[in-house]
Amino acid sequence: MRAVDVIAKKRDGGELTAEEISFFIQGYTRDEIPDYQASAWLMAIYLRGMTDRETEHLTLAMAHSGDVLDLSDVAPLVVDKHSTGGVGDKVSLVAAPTLAALGLPVGKMSGRGLGFTGGTLDKLESIPGYRSDHTTQAFKDQLRRIGIVLTGQSADLAPADGKLYALRDVTATVPALPLIVGSVMSKKIAGGANAIVLDVKVGSGAFMKTVAEATVLAETMVRIGRSLGRRIVALLSDMNQPLGWAVGNALELREAIDTLRGGGPPDFYAHCIEVVAEMLLLVERAGDLDAARALAAQAITSGAAWEKFTALIAAQGGDVPTVEHPERLPQARLVEPLPAPADGFLQRVDAAQVGLAVMALGGGRAKKGDALDHAVGVVTHVKVGDRVSRGAPLLTLHANDAQRLAEARERLLAAHIIGPQAVDPLPLFYGRIALP
Amino acid sequence: MRAVDVIAKKRDGGELTAEEISFFIQGYTRDEIPDYQASAWLMAIYLRGMTDRETEHLTLAMAHSGDVLDLSDVAPLVVDKHSTGGVGDKVSLVAAPTLAALGLPVGKMSGRGLGFTGGTLDKLESIPGYRSDHTTQAFKDQLRRIGIVLTGQSADLAPADGKLYALRDVTATVPALPLIVGSVMSKKIAGGANAIVLDVKVGSGAFMKTVAEATVLAETMVRIGRSLGRRIVALLSDMNQPLGWAVGNALELREAIDTLRGGGPPDFYAHCIEVVAEMLLLVERAGDLDAARALAAQAITSGAAWEKFTALIAAQGGDVPTVEHPERLPQARLVEPLPAPADGFLQRVDAAQVGLAVMALGGGRAKKGDALDHAVGVVTHVKVGDRVSRGAPLLTLHANDAQRLAEARERLLAAHIIGPQAVDPLPLFYGRIALP
Repeated sequence: MRAVDVIAKKRDGGELTAEEISFFIQGYTRDEIPDYQASAWLMAIYLRGMTDRETEHLTLAMAHSGDVLDLSDVAPLVVDKHSTGGVGDKVSLVAAPTLAALGLPVGKMSGRGLGFTGGTLDKLESIPGYRSDHTTQAFKDQLRRIGIVLTGQSADLAPADGKLYALRDVTATVPALPLIVGSVMSKKIAGGANAIVLDVKVGSGAFMKTVAEATVLAETMVRIGRSLGRRIVALLSDMNQPLGWAVGNALELREAIDTLRGGGPPDFYAHCIEVVAEMLLLVERAGDLDAARALAAQAITSGAAWEKFTALIAAQGGDVPTVEHPERLPQARLVEPLPAPADGFLQRVDAAQVGLAVMALGGGRAKKGDALDHAVGVVTHVKVGDRVSRGAPLLTLHANDAQRLAEARERLLAAHIIGPQAVDPLPLFYGRIALP
Repeated sequence: MRAVDVIAKKRDGGELTAEEISFFIQGYTRDEIPDYQASAWLMAIYLRGMTDRETEHLTLAMAHSGDVLDLSDVAPLVVDKHSTGGVGDKVSLVAAPTLAALGLPVGKMSGRGLGFTGGTLDKLESIPGYRSDHTTQAFKDQLRRIGIVLTGQSADLAPADGKLYALRDVTATVPALPLIVGSVMSKKIAGGANAIVLDVKVGSGAFMKTVAEATVLAETMVRIGRSLGRRIVALLSDMNQPLGWAVGNALELREAIDTLRGGGPPDFYAHCIEVVAEMLLLVERAGDLDAARALAAQAITSGAAWEKFTALIAAQGGDVPTVEHPERLPQARLVEPLPAPADGFLQRVDAAQVGLAVMALGGGRAKKGDALDHAVGVVTHVKVGDRVSRGAPLLTLHANDAQRLAEARERLLAAHIIGPQAVDPLPLFYGRIALP
């Protein structure tokens, strides 16, 4: 088999076989197929697409490019959730310990944030001492011992994905459906989870801008997951404004801590409950969603989720007193309100711009490996549909540099559209994709 | 400007500006843009196409990636012909000296043969001593002195083309219209010719399999050439069987010598006359095609073309007695006929397979830099439409290796379809493309 023939077949719209896809992915992972052939292939996939069968083969080939965890010796059923990435999305910080408190082992490996979306690990690393470099053995040991791990992506899991992602990033082939599906699902398959709740974000702060696009992505991932023997469901959730109030690593962690302790923003709390409830339904721990939601809420109000969270922090070397007293988390030097420029209603938010403003403050990465300032970010005070009064704060900026603060202020002002017409609040969810 | 943005624009079907194309071509030529970005861009061009305006910008950017020859100090009008490549295509060997004999300076730089098509240089290099490594100054001096040069492509002319071609070859992006046009026309523009006859081959032994495809290619090249100030015409010529009788380097050279001396295969002779006549019309040396054909024929029958040919060989260091006594050219050790397996008519030839058979005998290159055996090849004895008798030779094989000969024999037998039904002979030409 020759790489150029596999490229030509996809170029001409042919359906690649499992052998052809596996040949290409293995060859690329082992440096036998060069970047320049892989990028031509990726562009052909971008423009010609892939059938479900091809996407499934791609997912499997990427999963099997490295180790595939078998967690059956730890627990018969390990669960995981995955978000396609949004602004202010700290759901894992609450949902994972809540699920673990309900007796479902959560073994989760996360990437780091890139661009305008944050990463779960970056938020947790606001805590002094927190480590996210588990070996496979340490991952299994902790999962067995306390039923929860939130750690980094091992280089041994789905190495093809890391290599392909770096190439996609510089060849304009990131937003291709089969490649997104392959990237997400291969890591989930390699990570060993048996049941997966996908949180597919839709809107101005997400990769998928429309419900239609997000639906296609979610349906494809659910079909692929199912055909690979996973229990899987996808939620389509709103990302036309930040989730919750806080955007920024330590600020989001504080908000998650508040939520685990029974407070926090109502939209974020409701979102976490829904994700947990969907998982309970998926693993048949509840007969319907209402019963599942009640179980989820109870795990939080009882303090069980909070207890699991502190156990997690302790197990991963984090300083527990810091999370118990979150005012000890990194704090920015400059904290300033952004006053509303007019009376009216918050009609629309460009959520990506809010994410980019936080990135510009130092809270995100333009490229892999960039350092982060955990303290900076914004805390919003209004949601779309809320009435605002001229001069009252739209949000509060947390910055460590006056120049950057001024730039972020401009960007944030432009990202919030205020008008005289009342508008409806945004829904939290647009739908759920489950196979019968 | 960022390469990734230019890739994304083409990926989404946008029309690239002159600046964007020039940025990419210059960046790639200077190794500032890596292969893996160039190949993604090439695949996007393959699948999204380019407008005429983009193709013109691409051609110019590639031409200006290196030196652009200005031959105005040599002659006000320098002519060139270019073939898209076929099996048995030795037209330049006859047309160029005929044109020069008629007083039109021919400055031609050729590539080497690759795959199933031969290269003019490879044929000339059957002659001991023949050199094809002119400097620009030597090129100009010889053109001024004897009015004809047939040499190799200088590395300083359109270097982007060589680099891009090597990449296209391994990324399945060779047969893309704008890239073919850019490759051919950039070299012609950089080579300094003012008037160009394009010979676009159509059929089983050509890149373009149908008249429709070839017409689109020819029209595009003619439009681009015209918009860049060149006199240009394109012929669509048959490549559903080898041109002439001989296929193979020294064998083709002998056939060209025979033709220049008044013999040779009728189809090949007629083809050469037509190419020369089109050029005479293009530069207004004749009022109509019939008058032009008469001039061309006269240049051959008078011996003027032959005289120019020997002057060319001498000027480029070749051994003139060898061309005067072509039996001294390299000869193969094994010369064997291929008998027709049945009575009937030659109905169809797979010309590419004939080319591949010669390549397998050692007469062509699978990849750049491969060594050639000048002596090997085949001499066909029948044309499509001819009656054949079982046992009479279809062609004669010239080989230097018994194993290779046996393999070529099988391939050639399969490539010649003989049946009981009479079929019409193939036309020489399918049309001509000229702008008013």
